[in-house]
Parts: sequence; C-alpha cells; structure tokens
Amino acid sequence: MKIFPDCIPCLLKQTLTTLQFATEDTDLHIQGLKEVVRIMPSLIELPTPTHIGRVIHNLTKVITCNPDPYKKVKLEHTETALKLYPELILKLKSSTQKPLLTALKIAAAGNTIDFARGKDFDLSKELELTLNKEFKLCDYDRFINDLKKADKILYIGDNAGETVFDKVLIEEINNYRNDRNVFYAVRGLPVINDATYEDALASGISDVAEIVDSGTDAPAALLEYCTPAFHKLFNQSSLIISKGQGNYEGLSESNAPIYFLFKVKCPAIEKSLNATLGDLLFLGNPLSV
Amino acid sequence: MKIFPDCIPCLLKQTLTTLQFATEDTDLHIQGLKEVVRIMPSLIELPTPTHIGRVIHNLTKVITCNPDPYKKVKLEHTETALKLYPELILKLKSSTQKPLLTALKIAAAGNTIDFARGKDFDLSKELELTLNKEFKLCDYDRFINDLKKADKILYIGDNAGETVFDKVLIEEINNYRNDRNVFYAVRGLPVINDATYEDALASGISDVAEIVDSGTDAPAALLEYCTPAFHKLFNQSSLIISKGQGNYEGLSESNAPIYFLFKVKCPAIEKSLNATLGDLLFLGNPLSV
Repeated sequence: MKIFPDCIPCLLKQTLTTLQFATEDTDLHIQGLKEVVRIMPSLIELPTPTHIGRVIHNLTKVITCNPDPYKKVKLEHTETALKLYPELILKLKSSTQKPLLTALKIAAAGNTIDFARGKDFDLSKELELTLNKEFKLCDYDRFINDLKKADKILYIGDNAGETVFDKVLIEEINNYRNDRNVFYAVRGLPVINDATYEDALASGISDVAEIVDSGTDAPAALLEYCTPAFHKLFNQSSLIISKGQGNYEGLSESNAPIYFLFKVKCPAIEKSLNATLGDLLFLGNPLSV
Repeated sequence: MKIFPDCIPCLLKQTLTTLQFATEDTDLHIQGLKEVVRIMPSLIELPTPTHIGRVIHNLTKVITCNPDPYKKVKLEHTETALKLYPELILKLKSSTQKPLLTALKIAAAGNTIDFARGKDFDLSKELELTLNKEFKLCDYDRFINDLKKADKILYIGDNAGETVFDKVLIEEINNYRNDRNVFYAVRGLPVINDATYEDALASGISDVAEIVDSGTDAPAALLEYCTPAFHKLFNQSSLIISKGQGNYEGLSESNAPIYFLFKVKCPAIEKSLNATLGDLLFLGNPLSV
C-alpha cells in the first residue's frame, strides 16, 4: 500500500511512542524525533508505510541502545492473552456460527492488540467490543474453497499476544482439514510489538503449526528483507493468511493467494479500502484471482 | 512554554488537519507536509510551540492559496455558541456558586472549542461534560483581589465561538466592578480557528468590551509579532486574562499580571503543569507575584 498524507504524522507519533517505550531519557526522545524528521523527506519516497516503519524502528533501537523497546509489553500481552485462551475456546464451542467463521472472528479480534498507535489502551474492553462485531467484508466461501484444496498453508503473524488468538484459528483449520500443515511466520528481529520466534513459542503456536522465522526486521513480511528460505515457503504456499494492517500494507501489491485478516485502525487504510475505523476485514487478495 | 517531544508529531498532525480544511487536493496535503518536514529541524529550535505553529500555518495558507482554512468552521462555531448563549446565562443565574466563579467556569468550558487537534469533535457533548467539571486549580481569591484593584483589564481571546463564552465572563466582570474597562484582544490574521476581529464582533463582544487587534499571525499573543499599540496596552494593563493553551504556551515566560484560563488538551501541557488531560485551570501567573 502506498503512503497517504495521514501516514506522515502517524509515523512521527509512532516514533515518539517507541522512543518512550525504549527509554525514559527525554533528551533521547527529542534526538530520535529530530533524526527521523531529518531523514523523513527521503523516507516519504519509500514504497509503503512499513518500509518507513522499518527504518524508523531500527533508528530508535540504535539511538536508545534498546534492541527491543516493547519487550515488557509483549510479555504482558502474551500473558494476558494466554489467560483468555480458555474463554476463547469456550466462545468457539458455544458459538451458533460455523466454527471456522467464529475462529476467524476470534483471530481478527486478536488484532486489537496493537501498541504501535499509542500507550493508552484498554485491551479487555477493546477485545469484548471487537468479538461482538461482525465482519464488514468476509470472503469466507472463497476461503473455504481454497482451504480445501490447499497443500502448504502460510500464516503470517502480527503482534505478540495476538498469537494466542491465531492459535485458536490454526487449531480450527487443522480440525477442518484433519491435518497439520500450517507454517506460522514471525519477524526475524524485534520491531514494535510484533511477534518474534520467542513470542510465538510462548503463545503455544508450536502445538498447532511450525514456527518459521521470516528474517525481516520490518513491521511486515516485506519480501525484500526476508530470508531466501522464507521466499521459497511464500512462493510454495497455496494459501496464505496475512494478519494485521502492517502485513496488508507490505503485501497488498503481491499477487500471491493471500487472505488479509485485520481490523481497520487508521485513516490511510480507511481511504485505501473504503472502510471505516474499527471494521473487521477478511479480504481474499483480488490480485490473486 | 518550551517544546516537548510530544509537540513534534502533534504539530505535523495539526499541519495535515489544516491542509485538509484548506483544500481537498491530496497532492497539496503531501506537498505541505513535505515542506513542513523539510524545515522542521529549524522549527524545533524556535522558543515555543506557538512560534512553530505560526510558521506552519502561514506555510499552509501559501501552499493551498487559502488565507483562512477554518473560515467555515469558525462561522459554524460562532453560530452554535450564539444559540447556546441564553442557556449559558440561565446556567449562570441558577448556579449556587458565586456568579463570577460560575462565569469563569463557563469561559473555561468555551475553551473546549478547539479544532487544532482534529476534525472529529462533538461540541455539545464536550461542553456539557466540561461545564459539569470543577477547576483542578483556581486562583480565585487572588484574582478577586487583583480584579478589585485593576484599572485597565486585557482579555486575550482564543477560538472563534469560545468568544461567546468569554462574553458571559466579561459581562460578569463588568457587573462585579460596575464599570466597562475590558479590552478584548484578537489575532491580527486568521490562524487555525482563532478569533479575529470579525469573529469577536459576530459574537457580540463589542457589547461588553473594546475589541483590539493584537496584530499577530501566530496562534498566541506572541509579543514580538504584535503591534506597538498592543504592546502598550499589554504593558499598561493591571490585569490580563489569557484564554487557551496557545496563549499559555506563548506567554508563560512573561512576568505580566496574567491569569491563564484554559482546558488541558495535550501531554506537553500535562507535563509542563503536572496536570491531567481535560483539567480546567485558572492559574495566576506565578512569575508576576
């Protein structure tokens, strides 16, 4: 997805939030912001907001000497989500909708965990609200059709904690297909609160899928920053589930068989997809038809 | 008030909001943001956020060829506020608190009108909430003491529409003192939704005070950009009421006999004054004691 005007102040705000998570030293907050502002004219020329995010987050790590500013947040979110897990399973079992559709909703609700946008955030309240929503757009039938035929399935994760909600969906996919052929991709290095190998492991993803390291240090599976092994897996997968806005921003120009599953969280996505803030989307890639 | 890290993304967001009010041409939104980002490293060195705001808003006017992006908003807000005026007077008459204290609260509630922060804003709801709040800090006794002794009173206005709420307070000041010696200062040129001469006139301020043009094109009465006539008035005034955050940011280093009356609207002010978002403050200048 290309950059919208709204992305520019938002990326600056994201810079500040990350700097504040990384260090309490306000001089470093100013220094980091000044540095990002200085290079912003070149950053604006990059192809997607996640390309810019990659540079910004690498810079904040260097300036603050903190390689993982969201480490504590990620641990807390995973812990909170693991506590919710039995409740999510109960919700799945007691739902009157198709189990796979309910599992998709649960996974989408997990996308509510997103600290890139600010420090103030009531997780439980947001989750409850999101679980009670319906999808604004849901390519369910096309997905089921593809799911039946798929050989290798790639699931590209997003935030730590959200991983627990993803586990619910992957379990349901395994049940539906009566096999276990899902690969769960994580970031190669910490970036914002995105899930790395450790975060996915801590969420129990390895019980239901094979965790693979995409190698990227971007807040999206940007192929040019992923390992050759991930490229191979990406190209071989007959069905890809991409979680979160970041992965959508990074992969929306691809013609791979991707289903984008996320909650709309910013005006740029609203404009790009003619959606409304808070909408839940499960969008089969129109470029792969 | 000096610049806080939070000011930098906020000023960029304010740039975008103003560009969006000024024109629907998204190419100009990008162009304006790029230009502001380009000069931001120098802007950060300016003494207060309102000095930066001044440059940014002048730039957006030039880039969009729109000398008054908030013109329509200001007219709407003045109209809405004028409709509320009888209700405000009723609130004042029926209050069990001292009339002047209630009038101060009404004027502070008027400071809720603030479009610099975003386009989404429910005025009536915000006003009702604010009118039901108590001041977090209120130098009322000191103010009454100064008010009794004051000769010339300068009231530095803030937003269009808020002017109607200011009128309620000035009327009550005139009643209390049994005279009419208030000068109401407005911006010299349109900047954000700040009140100019026309806006103050449309609100009926001339019924209760003499409207004076400060001459500034900044979103605050920054003395270096005001007319010599305003300087003289400022220096001769034995009591000054300064409305809004902008004027606080611009005048907080002054040792003039100022009372700052405003609602806390951003993290920078929270940190600067150890206050909380939404707090109502009526703060006698500690530097003037």
